[in-house]
Amino acid sequence: MNQSPWSRDEFEQRLRDKGRLYHIHHPYHVMMNTGKANKEQIQGWVANRFYYQTSIPIKDAAILANCNERDVRREWVQRILDHDGFEGEDGGIEAWLRLAEAVGLSRESVESHQGVLPGVRFACDAYVNFARRATWQEAACSSLTELFAPEIHQNRLDNWPEHYPWIDNEGYSYFRKRLSEARRDVEHGLQITLDHFKTREQQEYALSILQFKLNILWTILDAMQMAYVHQQAPFHSCPE
Amino acid sequence: MNQSPWSRDEFEQRLRDKGRLYHIHHPYHVMMNTGKANKEQIQGWVANRFYYQTSIPIKDAAILANCNERDVRREWVQRILDHDGFEGEDGGIEAWLRLAEAVGLSRESVESHQGVLPGVRFACDAYVNFARRATWQEAACSSLTELFAPEIHQNRLDNWPEHYPWIDNEGYSYFRKRLSEARRDVEHGLQITLDHFKTREQQEYALSILQFKLNILWTILDAMQMAYVHQQAPFHSCPE
Repeated sequence: MNQSPWSRDEFEQRLRDKGRLYHIHHPYHVMMNTGKANKEQIQGWVANRFYYQTSIPIKDAAILANCNERDVRREWVQRILDHDGFEGEDGGIEAWLRLAEAVGLSRESVESHQGVLPGVRFACDAYVNFARRATWQEAACSSLTELFAPEIHQNRLDNWPEHYPWIDNEGYSYFRKRLSEARRDVEHGLQITLDHFKTREQQEYALSILQFKLNILWTILDAMQMAYVHQQAPFHSCPE
Repeated sequence: MNQSPWSRDEFEQRLRDKGRLYHIHHPYHVMMNTGKANKEQIQGWVANRFYYQTSIPIKDAAILANCNERDVRREWVQRILDHDGFEGEDGGIEAWLRLAEAVGLSRESVESHQGVLPGVRFACDAYVNFARRATWQEAACSSLTELFAPEIHQNRLDNWPEHYPWIDNEGYSYFRKRLSEARRDVEHGLQITLDHFKTREQQEYALSILQFKLNILWTILDAMQMAYVHQQAPFHSCPE
């Protein structure tokens, strides 16, 4: 039995309602944002999350590579520029490296991806591989966790300086930068999604794509919870 | 500075030494094999691991799809037949479904992959995606965790009937079947690896591929540890 499609407004609302499952509610994030994380847990997050940061422009390049609409590519390519930077603008990856330095990590160790947990790697790679194999509209839809990103960035800007005075203020430029970028990006991704997914079945598929992306962000923090809270980093129990 | 390659025997020994990091040492596996798992933990393992089982023939098909050597394909295709079955032989996936039934799960719920943890899905998909993008020799190398599989299957056959008398004996046919198949398969994968990776740099790369696969198996159990031991299944902490 075919159900009638949701209206554009109701479809958008259902996408926004998924924010209930955003990783802002993950125990690891709650721990960090309430000042209960120790230095190792903050450093672990910054170093692991860097792998996600470096995956983003690769994911966006995969979307471009699947997109035969010049107008979309002209707008979407801005995301690659935002993260990789260009002449006169360092970009988000560089800003993240400054965050890494601000929490006491060396740029070289973070850039090398040494110590990135396998679970973090697999989750980020799942995002890139989805973008490689899905249509560009489906991949655009998977980016809609940006709907919820300004709040989490603002939370960090509001709470971290108080909780973690040992973090240099220079480290927060990434979050400030993303506040405005995420708001602009999500408008584009949202229009693509609302335009493309028309039938009820397609709309429900769009929700499942967004859920897949929420799973990725959540699983990244699960891996950190295991390693830095439960103290069960991979192979800790193996014989020497 | 180039280092001289290891001899064939030393290279093989270094591959075998990786068994130290096999998931037989993971706390979840130790828990199951020492009789300390409850029914939910056993069922969770069987249902989640089914996703891995269904990934195997897809991974092997990706290897065939990248292999232009007929002789290799003629031998490697046996793995697909082993798992998917053929006229007169049910195959490993069917045997796993009988294990699922023996631990009290319905065939339908397990086949639907409902309840497969995102972390398990991302780890298994990482294996398939590696096989899609690597050379067939590299992908063959990633299968070498089979070096260590007979021991883990034998452990289950030795210990589970005593610890878990509620599991129907019919459920163990998968492990019995794999005891001989894994021994045969690993011989083929090992010869490919020893033949293909010649320089010291290549040999070290082969070890890193095997480590990647060990990470996958370990991470699969990490996800179960979070969900069924630490009781932190995804989104358990989200507002309703």
